[in-house]
Amino acid sequence: MAEEKLPTRAEDFSEWYNQLVLKAQLADYAPVRGCMVVRPYGWALWENITAALDRRFKATGHQNVAFPMLIPRSFIDKEKHHVEGFSPELAVVTIGGGEELAEPLVIRPTSETIIGHMWSKWIQSYRDLPVLMNQWNSVVRWELRTKLFLRTLEFYWQEGHTAHATREEAEAETRQMLDIYTDFAVNDAAIPVIPGKKSDAEKFAGADHTFSIEAMMGDGKALQAGTSHFLGENFAQAFDVKYLDQHGQQQFCWTTSWGLSTRFIGAIIMVHGDDQGLVLPPKLAPYQVVIVPIYKTDEERASVQGVARKLKEELAKANIRVTLDEREGPSPGWKFNDWEMRGVPLRVELGPKDVAKQSAVLARRDRPGREGKVSASLADLPRTVETLLVEIQQAIHDKALAFRKSHTQDATTYEELKRAVETGFAFSHWCGSAECEAKIKEEARATMRCIPLDQDNEKSAHGGQCVYCGKPAAKRAIFARAY
Amino acid sequence: MAEEKLPTRAEDFSEWYNQLVLKAQLADYAPVRGCMVVRPYGWALWENITAALDRRFKATGHQNVAFPMLIPRSFIDKEKHHVEGFSPELAVVTIGGGEELAEPLVIRPTSETIIGHMWSKWIQSYRDLPVLMNQWNSVVRWELRTKLFLRTLEFYWQEGHTAHATREEAEAETRQMLDIYTDFAVNDAAIPVIPGKKSDAEKFAGADHTFSIEAMMGDGKALQAGTSHFLGENFAQAFDVKYLDQHGQQQFCWTTSWGLSTRFIGAIIMVHGDDQGLVLPPKLAPYQVVIVPIYKTDEERASVQGVARKLKEELAKANIRVTLDEREGPSPGWKFNDWEMRGVPLRVELGPKDVAKQSAVLARRDRPGREGKVSASLADLPRTVETLLVEIQQAIHDKALAFRKSHTQDATTYEELKRAVETGFAFSHWCGSAECEAKIKEEARATMRCIPLDQDNEKSAHGGQCVYCGKPAAKRAIFARAY
Repeated sequence: MAEEKLPTRAEDFSEWYNQLVLKAQLADYAPVRGCMVVRPYGWALWENITAALDRRFKATGHQNVAFPMLIPRSFIDKEKHHVEGFSPELAVVTIGGGEELAEPLVIRPTSETIIGHMWSKWIQSYRDLPVLMNQWNSVVRWELRTKLFLRTLEFYWQEGHTAHATREEAEAETRQMLDIYTDFAVNDAAIPVIPGKKSDAEKFAGADHTFSIEAMMGDGKALQAGTSHFLGENFAQAFDVKYLDQHGQQQFCWTTSWGLSTRFIGAIIMVHGDDQGLVLPPKLAPYQVVIVPIYKTDEERASVQGVARKLKEELAKANIRVTLDEREGPSPGWKFNDWEMRGVPLRVELGPKDVAKQSAVLARRDRPGREGKVSASLADLPRTVETLLVEIQQAIHDKALAFRKSHTQDATTYEELKRAVETGFAFSHWCGSAECEAKIKEEARATMRCIPLDQDNEKSAHGGQCVYCGKPAAKRAIFARAY
Repeated sequence: MAEEKLPTRAEDFSEWYNQLVLKAQLADYAPVRGCMVVRPYGWALWENITAALDRRFKATGHQNVAFPMLIPRSFIDKEKHHVEGFSPELAVVTIGGGEELAEPLVIRPTSETIIGHMWSKWIQSYRDLPVLMNQWNSVVRWELRTKLFLRTLEFYWQEGHTAHATREEAEAETRQMLDIYTDFAVNDAAIPVIPGKKSDAEKFAGADHTFSIEAMMGDGKALQAGTSHFLGENFAQAFDVKYLDQHGQQQFCWTTSWGLSTRFIGAIIMVHGDDQGLVLPPKLAPYQVVIVPIYKTDEERASVQGVARKLKEELAKANIRVTLDEREGPSPGWKFNDWEMRGVPLRVELGPKDVAKQSAVLARRDRPGREGKVSASLADLPRTVETLLVEIQQAIHDKALAFRKSHTQDATTYEELKRAVETGFAFSHWCGSAECEAKIKEEARATMRCIPLDQDNEKSAHGGQCVYCGKPAAKRAIFARAY
């Protein structure tokens, strides 16, 4: 129930976010520190995200599987960077069925190790390749500072894992999945993202290199919204994943992994949300349309209710996700606020006068006030709604893109970079050294988000001087404060 | 790859099952004792099961949610029967982030406790009821004797949880979900089941009473294939789940829970499978049709391949789940065996002669040999296939039902019961005492599976003498050996 107003984003962006997640009933805090409960509205959003991605994964030949959540502790130790990265974050099961376990088990923080172990049994010959797998599950990482959706001890995600005969194929897969994440973010979530390569400091523990999509939140900070890792032969060597090639030679496989998590819900909230609450992209919104009936007398109510229910059926028949708010008690105005908080893209207001005129008022969530209201004939409402949903989807994308552009600066000097990251992204030449990256992180509190793949679209992409040390730098990178 | 034959079911039913799960590539053993890896073919089957159930849950107003897997150990202790039942089976996390935890956490064995805890926060008034929730997840129970799908430390399931204002509503919900499981089992899985009430000895730990659906496997043993629990006010009292009623009085909620797990895959295997392998019900089969091209020369291959690919497209367009086996190397005969092992309901054999005649041979999985083969015109193959799939769905249901009937006996004496449970189910009057139940379990190694709801359809349902003690008994129960 949205009784109280949110703090504005300008006042306190972090608190705006925390309260919005609760008030919109997306999620709640669980009794265990750092864990969350995803409530029906939040899970319906996640189900739409999973459907949009799963369709893309299957269209590119991936098959879903389920590897167990419990992994022998010793597996984590087999890949040397992996163990360094994940050891501090493990949840360890030491007791099972009332007895101390001979070997402790960890709850998977990610599944490269156990998948590598099984692949070494299953993969024999080049005929078995490529292996293209994905799983939808949850993983546990013992994070110290947590925030609903953005960083929780347990989070939900998909983890894709593939094995290939050649480096080229595995690299192509890594890029293909990055493209799929980009396509999903832009076209389904209406979130403009920058696909690019991470630095060695920020790559996945065990990867040769990592790509990510980076999005700008409503406070100008960056959020890594999906990652795709080229793992080289690292895990194949650690777990002895080999195949017999066409010439009868044993070869190690080349592997990849890629993931997108419930963190993405945080991105949707922080990219599109406004001071009234959520603004959900029509393609992913649990409800695309809410019908709010307006009446005073019982007579009015009877007349409006009948039309509203028929309208709901018609919209549902046109494959529009619609709900009708028939709650007794709350006023229409209260309901308007409540559904604005929950980000439903389009509201249909239906009162006795509308019924008399055979029309309804449509109010766009992305354009508050009178500007976003139109009166539409009931006769072809499904068509009008469809058209408006497409418009809203595009409009919120364009708004987010314009925001990012206006909060991104080409920073050629270190002073410019430091100023730029106060409010958004800095695009700057970087020599590639870990030292410059670390200094910038320490001094400007900004991390190297990625080296965008698309350098040509940016000014002065043809070489320059590192923004920190002044040495020659072939490419520009994005620096930003980040979630 | 199905290189070697299975043992027959008559030789060794248990070993037939174990090998079939592996050879059909449904699942494999994980490195942790008692855990399993569900492979792509097995998970595709589970995805079809989840879709069939999820559709039914949503149509009856349930919403999906996600409660966390980690539960404070102390929660389990709050309901006295729950703690007795589940304590011995817990997996306990004692270390997180490298440090000993102040309070140990358990991996959920089921989620009544954590859900009760959250409901006590969320539910305030009668207006908030009913709460109708479901979640798809995995749970961990430290089982000693395990078997792929049937009993694993971690298993996949859905757990529904609902809260109601009245006992009547909660009881109606418990029965509604039992009906949904029955409908799913019979109509989608082609598995005849007997819905009924469990004894106190066999009910869920913490329930007032438990209903189940019981199915007969191919060896005459029973398998509990889904359960629905009326929890009374037990968990509401333990977790203080109260609401303010219309008269301003605080009342405890009445709650239910219900679940169906990957165990159900075991039922599908053991009900329908034969000595050649799986026989999957068309409505749930990952592939409903496999096309096997037959050729010797390159010329033949080119001609057959083109027609086969076109056929695949046409079938897919008609929403038939189809695969085309274009593997090089294996002979058509080897492929036939392989897909029989994997239980694809219908095989399309396409050779040069068929192409010349514009026809194909259709081979039904449920009728081996010539009897199950028909030649069909390519022109309307999608329609022919659709019709045959419906026939197969019905035929395997009827076969399973006939098998159950022929392996079920009305046992009026204890001797008859003991003989009946050697090969199937005994229907016998039972006085309802735990003593008789325990003696039968000990001496005949048969458990009371359920008291069927439908007593009228059975002979002599109007009272009789307990099969064990001879005292008056109002109802008959099923006794059987069970998985």
